[in-house]
Amino acid sequence: MPHTIYMESPLEDRILLAHGSGGKLAHELIKSRFVPAFDNTFLSRLDDSAVIEVSGRLAFTTDSFVVSPIFFPGGDIGRLAVCGTVNDLAMAGAKPLYLSLALIIEEGLLQSELSRIIGSVREAAREADVEIVTGDTKVVNRGSADRLFINTAGVGLIPHGVNISGHNARPGDIVILSGTIGDHGIAVLSQREGLSFSAPLQSDCAPLGGLVAGMLKISPSIHCLRDPTRGGLATTLNEIAEQSGVGIRIEEEKIRVRSEVLGACEMLGLDPLYIANEGKLVAVVPPQEAGRVVEAMRKHQYGKDAEIIGEVVAEHPRRVVMKTILGASLIVDMLVGDPLPRIC
Amino acid sequence: MPHTIYMESPLEDRILLAHGSGGKLAHELIKSRFVPAFDNTFLSRLDDSAVIEVSGRLAFTTDSFVVSPIFFPGGDIGRLAVCGTVNDLAMAGAKPLYLSLALIIEEGLLQSELSRIIGSVREAAREADVEIVTGDTKVVNRGSADRLFINTAGVGLIPHGVNISGHNARPGDIVILSGTIGDHGIAVLSQREGLSFSAPLQSDCAPLGGLVAGMLKISPSIHCLRDPTRGGLATTLNEIAEQSGVGIRIEEEKIRVRSEVLGACEMLGLDPLYIANEGKLVAVVPPQEAGRVVEAMRKHQYGKDAEIIGEVVAEHPRRVVMKTILGASLIVDMLVGDPLPRIC
Repeated sequence: MPHTIYMESPLEDRILLAHGSGGKLAHELIKSRFVPAFDNTFLSRLDDSAVIEVSGRLAFTTDSFVVSPIFFPGGDIGRLAVCGTVNDLAMAGAKPLYLSLALIIEEGLLQSELSRIIGSVREAAREADVEIVTGDTKVVNRGSADRLFINTAGVGLIPHGVNISGHNARPGDIVILSGTIGDHGIAVLSQREGLSFSAPLQSDCAPLGGLVAGMLKISPSIHCLRDPTRGGLATTLNEIAEQSGVGIRIEEEKIRVRSEVLGACEMLGLDPLYIANEGKLVAVVPPQEAGRVVEAMRKHQYGKDAEIIGEVVAEHPRRVVMKTILGASLIVDMLVGDPLPRIC
Repeated sequence: MPHTIYMESPLEDRILLAHGSGGKLAHELIKSRFVPAFDNTFLSRLDDSAVIEVSGRLAFTTDSFVVSPIFFPGGDIGRLAVCGTVNDLAMAGAKPLYLSLALIIEEGLLQSELSRIIGSVREAAREADVEIVTGDTKVVNRGSADRLFINTAGVGLIPHGVNISGHNARPGDIVILSGTIGDHGIAVLSQREGLSFSAPLQSDCAPLGGLVAGMLKISPSIHCLRDPTRGGLATTLNEIAEQSGVGIRIEEEKIRVRSEVLGACEMLGLDPLYIANEGKLVAVVPPQEAGRVVEAMRKHQYGKDAEIIGEVVAEHPRRVVMKTILGASLIVDMLVGDPLPRIC
C-alpha cells in the first residue's frame, strides 16, 4: 500500500493495526473512547464478560452490519447497528436491555469518523434505553475489510404472558404495517450512487422498542411482529406465511410509499415491496384487537402512519397474494437475488 | 473483478452476494446448512430472536474473529469463534450456555470451505456443551472482506457464590498458568508464512468451560480468571495488576514454552510472553487454595501442565515483574504495537 494514502492527515488521526492488538493502543482506545461514551458500571469493569442480573424469558439475537457507505442520509452504521438489534429483540416482544458492540475496522479509518459513529451508537442506545455492556475491537490491514463492520448482539426480557413468533399467525388475523416502506434502502442507495431527489430522502432507521411496548400494553396477545429489513415487506410476509402455514392477502392501495421512493424505484427498476426498511414493523393481531392496536401505534412517532394492510387467510397456505390498485391479484414471492447488496 | 476467478469451480459451489440478501438463497442457506448443523429448537424456529429461559447472574460477552488464514494447524476460524467466546464466559466463572453466530462472508468463498467451518463450529459447540441459538449471515462483494469473519456472542450462568473479576487480585494470592504459552500464535503464523517445524506445532484452541467448572468445584473463591489471548500472558497479567491495583511477580523458569515455539520466537524476534493463546488460562487464587486448584487442573486435559508461576504482591502496584532464569528482575510491560496482527 502506498504511504501517500496516509498523508491526508497525520498518522495519529487514523486507526492502526495496533489498535486491535489487545495491547497498549487497544487499551487506550477502549478507555478513552468506549468507556466514557457508554458510561455504565458493566462495561467500565473491563472484564472478559459483562455480568448482568436477569430472570425470566430472555430474547437473544445478533446482527452484523456491513452497510456501504457507512454514513447515509438519516443515519450511519452506528445508529443502524443499535436499531437493528434492538428491533430484533422488540420483534420477540422483549424489552431490549443490554447490547454488545463488536467492531471490525479497516486500518486507516479516520479517528474522527470512528468518534462520530461511536457518538451515533451512544445516541441510539440512549433513545432505545439500552446499555452497551461489552465489546470487542479488531483491526484488519487495508484492503481486508471495507472501512468498518459492526456486530451487535442483544438480550431483552419478554414480559409475562407475551408469546410472539412467526409461527403464530392464524386465519382471520389482521396484518398491520407501521408506516411507509423502502425509505432506508433508497436512502442508502441514493448516497452510494450519488442520486439526488428534489425532497431530501432519509433512512427510517429507528429503535422500535417503545412502539412495541405501547402495542403490547393495549394487546398482549399480538401474534407476530417482524421488521421488514433485508428482502423488504414481501419477504417478511412470505416468512410469516411459511412459518405459520397460512395464506396472507394484502391490498396494494393500503401500502404507503413516499413519492421519492416510488420515483427512484421506477427509475431503477426496483420494487418497493423488496426494499429494506430499518424502522418499520409488521404486526399480525387477532381481529378484535386490530383497531385498538392501530390506534395505539398512531400515537407513537414511529407508528403514526400505521395502517391495516391485509389479513391472514386459510386459503393458499404459504403464499402472499396482493390485490393491486387496478384490481388484479398477484402472487408476491420472496426476494430472489439481491438487487441492493450491503444495505444494512 | 475478472470472471475467470469463478472458473475454478462451478458457480453454485461458491457463496454469492444473494446468499446474504435475506431472500430465497439466504433462506436456503439457513435451512440447508445452519439449522441441521446446530439442530436445536431455539434456532429452528427462525424468529428474529431466540427465546431462552434463564434466571440469575448472567455473563454476556462478544468477540469477532478475523484470523488469517482461516484454516490453521489445530483448528480453524470456526473452532476459534466458539472457543473464544466460551472462554470469555468461563473467565467470568460462568457456565457457558448459548451462543450467537454471525458470519461476514466475502463473495466467492467456496461452499465446501463454509461447510467445513460450520462443521468445526458444531464440533466445538458440542465439546463446549453450548448451543448456537441465533445467527446472521452477511455477504460482501469481493475485495471488501478477507474470505470470512465470524462474530460470536454468548451468555452463561454464574453459579451462586462465585465472584470472579480482574479487580479481585489481593496481595498474597497465587498466580497459576494452565499450560504452555504461544502455541496458537506461532501455529497461525507458521501457516501464514509457510514456516515448517520438525515437530508439527498445533494451535491450543480449546473450550475451557469444563476446566473452569472443575476448578470452581474445588475452590468457589477463585479471585481472577483470564485467558491470555491477544497480547499474550504479559498483557493479561498487566491487565489484572492494573485492574486490582496490585503488583505481580512471576518466575520465568515456571513458564512452559514448547521448544518449537521458542525456536520460532528466537528466529522471528518475538517474545512468547506476548504471543496469543486460545486454550490457556491464568488463575489468581487465595494462597491456601492454590495447591488443590493446581491438582484439580492437572486432572483435566486442558490443564494437565498447570503450574504456579508467581504471586500477587503489595509492592510495585500496577507492575508485573519477572525473575529471569538468570536471576535478574525485569519489568514486563503490556504489549506495545502488534507483532502478529489477525491472530484471532
